[in-house]
Amino acid sequence: MNITNLTNSTENVVYSEFPSMALNFSWLRRGIAEIFPQPHDADSETESLEKRLANTNRPLRVKLGIDPTGADIHLGHSIPVRKLRAFQDAGHTAVLIIGDFTARIGDPTGKSDVRRQLTEDDVALNARTYLDQVRPILDFDTPGRLEVRYNSEWLSRLDLGKILELLSTMTVGQMLAKEGFAERYKQENPIFLHEFLYPLMQGFDSVAVEADVELGGTDQKFNIAVGRDLQRHFGLKPQFGLLLPILIGTDGVQKMSKSLNNYVGLGEHPSQKYQKLQCVPDNLLSQYFELLTDLPLDKLKENPRDRQKHLAWEIVRQYHGEEAANEAQKAAESCGEEGTLPEFSLAEAEVQFPAKLAYVLCLSKLCKSTSEGKRKIQEGGVRLDGVKITDADTTYQHPSELQGKVLQVGKNKFVRLTP
Amino acid sequence: MNITNLTNSTENVVYSEFPSMALNFSWLRRGIAEIFPQPHDADSETESLEKRLANTNRPLRVKLGIDPTGADIHLGHSIPVRKLRAFQDAGHTAVLIIGDFTARIGDPTGKSDVRRQLTEDDVALNARTYLDQVRPILDFDTPGRLEVRYNSEWLSRLDLGKILELLSTMTVGQMLAKEGFAERYKQENPIFLHEFLYPLMQGFDSVAVEADVELGGTDQKFNIAVGRDLQRHFGLKPQFGLLLPILIGTDGVQKMSKSLNNYVGLGEHPSQKYQKLQCVPDNLLSQYFELLTDLPLDKLKENPRDRQKHLAWEIVRQYHGEEAANEAQKAAESCGEEGTLPEFSLAEAEVQFPAKLAYVLCLSKLCKSTSEGKRKIQEGGVRLDGVKITDADTTYQHPSELQGKVLQVGKNKFVRLTP
Repeated sequence: MNITNLTNSTENVVYSEFPSMALNFSWLRRGIAEIFPQPHDADSETESLEKRLANTNRPLRVKLGIDPTGADIHLGHSIPVRKLRAFQDAGHTAVLIIGDFTARIGDPTGKSDVRRQLTEDDVALNARTYLDQVRPILDFDTPGRLEVRYNSEWLSRLDLGKILELLSTMTVGQMLAKEGFAERYKQENPIFLHEFLYPLMQGFDSVAVEADVELGGTDQKFNIAVGRDLQRHFGLKPQFGLLLPILIGTDGVQKMSKSLNNYVGLGEHPSQKYQKLQCVPDNLLSQYFELLTDLPLDKLKENPRDRQKHLAWEIVRQYHGEEAANEAQKAAESCGEEGTLPEFSLAEAEVQFPAKLAYVLCLSKLCKSTSEGKRKIQEGGVRLDGVKITDADTTYQHPSELQGKVLQVGKNKFVRLTP
Repeated sequence: MNITNLTNSTENVVYSEFPSMALNFSWLRRGIAEIFPQPHDADSETESLEKRLANTNRPLRVKLGIDPTGADIHLGHSIPVRKLRAFQDAGHTAVLIIGDFTARIGDPTGKSDVRRQLTEDDVALNARTYLDQVRPILDFDTPGRLEVRYNSEWLSRLDLGKILELLSTMTVGQMLAKEGFAERYKQENPIFLHEFLYPLMQGFDSVAVEADVELGGTDQKFNIAVGRDLQRHFGLKPQFGLLLPILIGTDGVQKMSKSLNNYVGLGEHPSQKYQKLQCVPDNLLSQYFELLTDLPLDKLKENPRDRQKHLAWEIVRQYHGEEAANEAQKAAESCGEEGTLPEFSLAEAEVQFPAKLAYVLCLSKLCKSTSEGKRKIQEGGVRLDGVKITDADTTYQHPSELQGKVLQVGKNKFVRLTP
């Protein structure tokens, strides 16, 4: 592999720091979904993660697996990375695992879009882009606080004997109980045998790096538990699992996802981030503050509009600094009365009703022509107050159907429609 | 591996022999359970094995897999080996595959007695013993007629990427349809994931040696079919499967097996073979002739006793030559009136009725004492006319219950009870 090693060796860690951490673990509990096992769980070693953190005499190794099939990451992805930073600040070692092995192989059936095959260069580029994007979050500089590992290091060395051993640790019944498999098996949707290996491969990563804690979304509980079993099988102390919530996107409905266009990318321009975040629906604001900032939650501004602006400013500050946050805020405020958006007056433009949406798109200058407007609608790029419009012939009978709403083309073009 | 290579390279084969074989394939059809695919099968290449044999311009490669976990083999095991010889005689190449890879690994769960772990030396010794025992059956000498391969040659080189590819060719549903798995899954008996790999490993053997035909017992249909699928996946022409019946043991009831003590071992002394074979029950004789000899089935002797002797003589001849067969026959005939067994007269020994079986065992000198007799009965080593007696207190009320019957202790001690 010609991927540059970004690892800071753990050898530089000052072990005498431990155990000396403050016994306040509020940072640990903030915004998490679950920690397992709990002391009362049957398979627990009757030790809580807090106790482990308080009593350890060495930095714990905190694992986060990274899928290098996509380069762009968004605020949803940042949540476990932020928790990883919290562990770093408490003196522990973040172990970022780039899942290059599976990405290089792809899905052998060729049926999975998610597991398309990447070249070595693709993987290297995606890993680099990923690390660039999380650089503002993680501590890359303090010695011993970050290890970046590629799982091909150990997975490419597994032979059939070892793989038989990995497989022998689980039964078909246990694997079919996994969320996703259970439903597919019931519905007689084919499950290919190699799919059973992925949780074991992820679990073996925990063996290879001797993880003490693994972070992941709530959808990772099964895989992290497999890691525990494999560590036990190979004579290691099983890791703790720390599960983090899946972030709801800026639409307030579905989980944040690039394909749903309800995301804020870490790589986006400060103004773009600000624009999107100042529109986060009221009911999501406290979750966003909890998961994406370190601000004390009992001291948030009362006015919802102020809270939106504060969130937008704070997150831009995290990634781009205070100056950029101020600028983005200023730019957004200069955009219009509402402090956010340019306006388009239906009356001033003398829009005649019934009016075609494509025509309004042209008149408002969101599109260059009515035909471009139609095309954008057909491509799914046009939303009215966040609702996608897909019929190119959509027609409105009366200005009241449009007044006060936000018309949007693509990611970056918005106008507020006024009477 | 320090196992001597017993392979005769195919390079020495005179290819010009093909296609010149007689178009009589009676040798192929004799004593088989099934050939698949048939031209009318959905997945067939609309070519029968006969047609393939008739039209090939090179020797076909005929695979038989050998499990090297046990050293002793019996007549049941000899059936596919004999068919292999028939292919050799028709000019084709026998490819014997010693399954050393799995034997070296054993069962990773340690739960399977069948898959206990063997050392390299164990495997080498068992393979050597196996080859010594089949030497009288196979053509070891004609160049190009025999290849002996150890599957560690290719299986030990498989990496995780290749194994993912193998696994991706099958679904969980297909695997759970396999005889054995289906019942266990239904009954919620755990199936460990590594068990799914064994059929794929056997199938990959067919890819590695580019088998044209695979031989096996009727219980091997699934595995041979997996080999076909994998060959197709790797761009090879899929092999034919030729399935052979499972031999019923000399007890006439269960399949021949060492543990059931109803077997004739290829390594046994000629006299021992003869003794056992001349007692094969009438109803099995024609199957034994069909599967274990090349004699024309329409020319067998009419008298059942003569047929038994003929079978015994013929099989001893196959493994030890004519002289040994004659000697074994002579020895058997000098044993008693019936030509086979020493006799024990109940009247002459003044056996009092009711009489305990253990006492008869002592009087007849099959056991040294009545208590040894009881122990032998309890151990399951005593049979009356082939029926196992297990109650140590078994008592007979009248001589008529015993007269004319054969009393047997262990494998080698027999008497015929006379009035």
